[in-house]
Amino acid sequence: MGKDVYNRRLRGGMVGGGPGAFIGPVHRMAATMDGEAEFVAGCFSRDAAKSKEAGDALHLDPARVYRSYREMAEQEAKKPAGEKLDFVSIVVTTAYHYEVARCFVEHGFNVVCDKPMTTSLEDAHALSDLVGKAGTAFVLTHNYTGYPMVKEARHRVATGELGRVNKVVVEYPQGWLSQLVEGGASEISMWRMDPAQAGPSNCTGDIGIHAENLCRYVTGLEIDEVCAEASSFIPDHKLDDDSMMLLRFKGGAKGILYASQISSGEENGLNIRVYGTKKGLQWWQEEPNYLVLKDPAGYQTRLSRGNPDLVCAIAKEYMRTPFGHPEGFIEAFANVYREGFKTIRAQVAGDPDPGADHPTVHDGVAGLAFIATVLESSKSDRKWTKMKS
Amino acid sequence: MGKDVYNRRLRGGMVGGGPGAFIGPVHRMAATMDGEAEFVAGCFSRDAAKSKEAGDALHLDPARVYRSYREMAEQEAKKPAGEKLDFVSIVVTTAYHYEVARCFVEHGFNVVCDKPMTTSLEDAHALSDLVGKAGTAFVLTHNYTGYPMVKEARHRVATGELGRVNKVVVEYPQGWLSQLVEGGASEISMWRMDPAQAGPSNCTGDIGIHAENLCRYVTGLEIDEVCAEASSFIPDHKLDDDSMMLLRFKGGAKGILYASQISSGEENGLNIRVYGTKKGLQWWQEEPNYLVLKDPAGYQTRLSRGNPDLVCAIAKEYMRTPFGHPEGFIEAFANVYREGFKTIRAQVAGDPDPGADHPTVHDGVAGLAFIATVLESSKSDRKWTKMKS
Amino acid sequence: MGKDVYNRRLRGGMVGGGPGAFIGPVHRMAATMDGEAEFVAGCFSRDAAKSKEAGDALHLDPARVYRSYREMAEQEAKKPAGEKLDFVSIVVTTAYHYEVARCFVEHGFNVVCDKPMTTSLEDAHALSDLVGKAGTAFVLTHNYTGYPMVKEARHRVATGELGRVNKVVVEYPQGWLSQLVEGGASEISMWRMDPAQAGPSNCTGDIGIHAENLCRYVTGLEIDEVCAEASSFIPDHKLDDDSMMLLRFKGGAKGILYASQISSGEENGLNIRVYGTKKGLQWWQEEPNYLVLKDPAGYQTRLSRGNPDLVCAIAKEYMRTPFGHPEGFIEAFANVYREGFKTIRAQVAGDPDPGADHPTVHDGVAGLAFIATVLESSKSDRKWTKMKS
Amino acid sequence: MGKDVYNRRLRGGMVGGGPGAFIGPVHRMAATMDGEAEFVAGCFSRDAAKSKEAGDALHLDPARVYRSYREMAEQEAKKPAGEKLDFVSIVVTTAYHYEVARCFVEHGFNVVCDKPMTTSLEDAHALSDLVGKAGTAFVLTHNYTGYPMVKEARHRVATGELGRVNKVVVEYPQGWLSQLVEGGASEISMWRMDPAQAGPSNCTGDIGIHAENLCRYVTGLEIDEVCAEASSFIPDHKLDDDSMMLLRFKGGAKGILYASQISSGEENGLNIRVYGTKKGLQWWQEEPNYLVLKDPAGYQTRLSRGNPDLVCAIAKEYMRTPFGHPEGFIEAFANVYREGFKTIRAQVAGDPDPGADHPTVHDGVAGLAFIATVLESSKSDRKWTKMKS
Repeated sequence: MGKDVYNRRLRGGMVGGGPGAFIGPVHRMAATMDGEAEFVAGCFSRDAAKSKEAGDALHLDPARVYRSYREMAEQEAKKPAGEKLDFVSIVVTTAYHYEVARCFVEHGFNVVCDKPMTTSLEDAHALSDLVGKAGTAFVLTHNYTGYPMVKEARHRVATGELGRVNKVVVEYPQGWLSQLVEGGASEISMWRMDPAQAGPSNCTGDIGIHAENLCRYVTGLEIDEVCAEASSFIPDHKLDDDSMMLLRFKGGAKGILYASQISSGEENGLNIRVYGTKKGLQWWQEEPNYLVLKDPAGYQTRLSRGNPDLVCAIAKEYMRTPFGHPEGFIEAFANVYREGFKTIRAQVAGDPDPGADHPTVHDGVAGLAFIATVLESSKSDRKWTKMKS
Repeated sequence: MGKDVYNRRLRGGMVGGGPGAFIGPVHRMAATMDGEAEFVAGCFSRDAAKSKEAGDALHLDPARVYRSYREMAEQEAKKPAGEKLDFVSIVVTTAYHYEVARCFVEHGFNVVCDKPMTTSLEDAHALSDLVGKAGTAFVLTHNYTGYPMVKEARHRVATGELGRVNKVVVEYPQGWLSQLVEGGASEISMWRMDPAQAGPSNCTGDIGIHAENLCRYVTGLEIDEVCAEASSFIPDHKLDDDSMMLLRFKGGAKGILYASQISSGEENGLNIRVYGTKKGLQWWQEEPNYLVLKDPAGYQTRLSRGNPDLVCAIAKEYMRTPFGHPEGFIEAFANVYREGFKTIRAQVAGDPDPGADHPTVHDGVAGLAFIATVLESSKSDRKWTKMKS
Repeated sequence: MGKDVYNRRLRGGMVGGGPGAFIGPVHRMAATMDGEAEFVAGCFSRDAAKSKEAGDALHLDPARVYRSYREMAEQEAKKPAGEKLDFVSIVVTTAYHYEVARCFVEHGFNVVCDKPMTTSLEDAHALSDLVGKAGTAFVLTHNYTGYPMVKEARHRVATGELGRVNKVVVEYPQGWLSQLVEGGASEISMWRMDPAQAGPSNCTGDIGIHAENLCRYVTGLEIDEVCAEASSFIPDHKLDDDSMMLLRFKGGAKGILYASQISSGEENGLNIRVYGTKKGLQWWQEEPNYLVLKDPAGYQTRLSRGNPDLVCAIAKEYMRTPFGHPEGFIEAFANVYREGFKTIRAQVAGDPDPGADHPTVHDGVAGLAFIATVLESSKSDRKWTKMKS
Repeated sequence: MGKDVYNRRLRGGMVGGGPGAFIGPVHRMAATMDGEAEFVAGCFSRDAAKSKEAGDALHLDPARVYRSYREMAEQEAKKPAGEKLDFVSIVVTTAYHYEVARCFVEHGFNVVCDKPMTTSLEDAHALSDLVGKAGTAFVLTHNYTGYPMVKEARHRVATGELGRVNKVVVEYPQGWLSQLVEGGASEISMWRMDPAQAGPSNCTGDIGIHAENLCRYVTGLEIDEVCAEASSFIPDHKLDDDSMMLLRFKGGAKGILYASQISSGEENGLNIRVYGTKKGLQWWQEEPNYLVLKDPAGYQTRLSRGNPDLVCAIAKEYMRTPFGHPEGFIEAFANVYREGFKTIRAQVAGDPDPGADHPTVHDGVAGLAFIATVLESSKSDRKWTKMKS
């Protein structure tokens, strides 16, 4: 029963990602890159005309293009085994993640959800509980951990090559909101800056959690205490557009985390530096095919993706092209889907969880806990705030 | 008749690209990335079992997985309009490009063919004539010209921003054969090093023509004379593994072109530098999202893919992700397909050639003319050899 | 009287800088690079034999090589005008800066002093008062502000090219102590790690103040409040070897400052990033000949030292070599001396202070205030600590 | 007799280097950087007033500032041992190198001479013979070989770390003349472009020989045959402003050498890449503190100057600052002087040649042989021209 799922393309549905969207198309390219899945149903917009437009552009059967996500969940739940969706990708604005994900989980669907998972820690816990009870697969697209050299970094740290880690610096500077600080582009009123749609945080919630997730994934360290300053430089901006903090990790390591949307001229500069007693390492999202190891004796070694001497099995496996042939953002995103599909296939087949390497509903809870802690710390006079869970 | 081709996914077939192949999967990812095409038929290997294995892995209808390319051409030619292949991608080893392409063109198919187009200039001319008569579309995957910043470079040169071009340096250093020079990996006997499969040239034919194509695409200059030295450093290697040359362009500019497979430690270092009377520019395939302009007054400007101030319309259009979110080799390859699909759709619809921006059968002829000229120059005592055509 | 000082080499003396020292020779190379000064007297070590050895190596008159700095101050103060020292460079360990500087100022000498100026804020104020009363010149060698592209950065900020500055990130990571964390090099017991010699701080005092000084010099911003965490990762290390902090500047800008000696594999990575409403800039000490300006539209401009379009007069003037001919650490140090010599010559000539561009005794006070504030903040439970003065 | 030379500063004289000169001040900074020499005499210009102006600026005894180099040679030759010049630095325009050097050698002086040594191969041989007979020291300032990481590169090649060298690419692109191609700066009529002053070559003679010298120094390979194209892109320019060539080395290696003054936007981009059977290496003058080793398995190692694991003794010794503290052009130049001083001191002391690591009169001959070969090859219809000697 359902074992054929290992020998066929997965059938996906999508909620969100209509005309003009950025992350929806990325999900579609990522999910289908390796020929393992195709999207066959969707509700791409709350505007039925736009939803239809998107469905047509994707050459979908019009009968499977819906006017509301509820209708989609209800109708698709009735499909026979041979047509039923194996997963639904949720790429709506953050404010709707929770209700849409809840609806599909309740209807028994496996879910791939963009981050942040919800707008509140309470919702995150509720969703996590629900997924646990439903026994469905849940893949959170913290896409940056899909880069092979991030996986290699994680393994180099885990195997002790750096020695004991003392210091971590993780940054996520962007500059795309910097010109709003002077009001130069005031006509742009984005949903990310609107508490009703983005939740209580903009910068920390949108990109700070990527930095936190990357830090946790690479170092394996858990943040114990945070001392944060979240700021709104844009006039009348209710949410944060810059978020900087000192970190104390369990076990004694310390760190700095910095996310910003007003760092003029920065593009998408997520990067991490990890310093152990023996070596340091550095990875930078804008040159993602390389991992740099730094030796105190005065040399740096730049490892290329595709190097046969990589120690991380999955980093070696995830090589669509040889070194020197750059892979990028979409391929990394595809790697999250590829691992997610392992979990999804096992779920459809009724097999045990294969322990695939992708973020889950638990990472979603951790992200919301981080956001809540940062916001609390930022308002506090106390220097250090314990990490929530 | 056939106008529906604008509103549906293209149907593709593939010849070659079976288990273990590198470029076949790249073609599949590239062709399907934007949801504009799907592969529905193929002959993936001369070994019928392997062809079947590949077809299964791709979830194809077994009835459309063939044992020979001739069978495929014949059978697929009989399909009704609603099933007929819109194009066939040819990714077999170079020695078979000509006969396979010829066969499909003769059966009326549009062809996407990997480079070099053939193993001889004569075959190239013959294929070009055949395509001309058949009126079919022919797309040659000189993939590096698919990078948006290469297109931007071309436009910056064309609009005169650099002034009159005097000097061009184009390099394509690789190191993957360097260890064979000492016999260290003698078990590897690759088809690229076998004249029967690769034709009369290895290095010039495999990567030298990418450098030549890039040079021509970016500068718009035509090579007038070549002074070349093609070398075989690997013992008993019948073909060249290093190829270097001085160039004289029509109009007075001069240049250096250098392709090598024994440049130890180089990965896939295709790069071009163009120097005009006003400015210089530099593009490097291993950091393909950037174009560097160099000003004699002492500053360099690094333009990012996605920059709204790019002057090249197509470079702005081909933005799957914003700047800071790296695109790579596969996305560039997909851009060649995307432009190719414009030509293919027009052909299927019976519309005029839309003049899309992709390499054609004429670029294939130019590549073979270049190879022949380089080999002749290399054997000659004369300093300069006129470029063949 | 004394006006000949404009037409002759300055006569310098040195205290410290004996065999094995690092910074002493740098001072000598820097002070003499442009032929404007020569050292003619010195007390190079508390060990008279070593002092003599150093004096001989420098080809000094043995009569002007002293056994103690007091003897030197007393004897040199008696020299006639035509032989008298124009300045004394103090390069002893930090613990002795105050008493040596005090002694020479009291004897009427102009002083060039390494940083940190003293080991306590109290001593710094006392020395500042003394210098004020004596009317002597005082040059503090915060050498990194001597780099021409740092001066250019300062001017670009000052002229408003970046818009209003919102965010500053300044880092000074080093890794040279990282291996001590595991006790791997325990035989090294350096004076910098000894409170008796280095004062109450190691990392903040040695390199944190360079970061603070660079930040103040480039941005012109004054730190209002600090939230700091100074750490000792090396077992039994009484002083800090890592120092990280959040900053609030007067006027509303915010920032991060990070200095570390246990960031394995980092060399001498002082760098600053400044983000305004219009642009960002970046300067990195390990590639000091360049200044990078970042535009939110998606391009970066790298300006070279020597570029005729620089806006800073002094950056254009301080060009010993054209662009492309790298200048480094010693040349930047020499620039501090060169500006210092303007002040010293004016003092000797009895002319008004020419307002030369070099750090002074006031920067020394600011540095010690910064150290004291950081240490207090680090011990405090309060999140923010007001900057001392 | 003369043994005191080991315990005192050397006395230098200079011919050329008057007001406005670039390389004269560099020689002065380089020669005096380590306190091993001082300039005490000179003839800085053919214009006596300018010579005096320069002498005053250097605080020289007016009696030792001369109106002509002949007068200087004659007068200085009469000085007693305790005052006599230990060396004379010749920094006049190239056309005068030969006659000035000849004059000082004939008067028994040790000479430090800028490059190219002469304007003809005949003069170079004559000067070499003369120096051989006179037994004086002769130091040629091919300054780029003074960089520690160039020395390290040489040693890594010599010890076989790269395996057998097959391919060398050495480039020296500059762009400072590019704007003359359009006549944009026609008022500049530089001596380097005047055959009467620069000799028969501009670009090859000025910078091509640096590339040749660097190539020979690093690889130890001798050029056997040259296939060159020297070009004049600047209208009415009698000399070459771009020079590119293919190389065959004795022993079978091949290479490309490229020097240019019309490569718009390039600064002083001398660089070398060496590819052996095992590894590749790369050094770039604009980031001179690093040497990059490239491994075919897909990683690069960047070694820093100052790294204790360097294999070259002299590279480790020549460390004025630790890694991370950049050294530059002047320091490299100073290293040539420092080695030259070993030879000069031995000559003064009557000791045997110590075999110091600096270019000599023989390198000067090799440089002129290279220029002559390139010019002959460039005019020839034959593909390959044997290297002259």
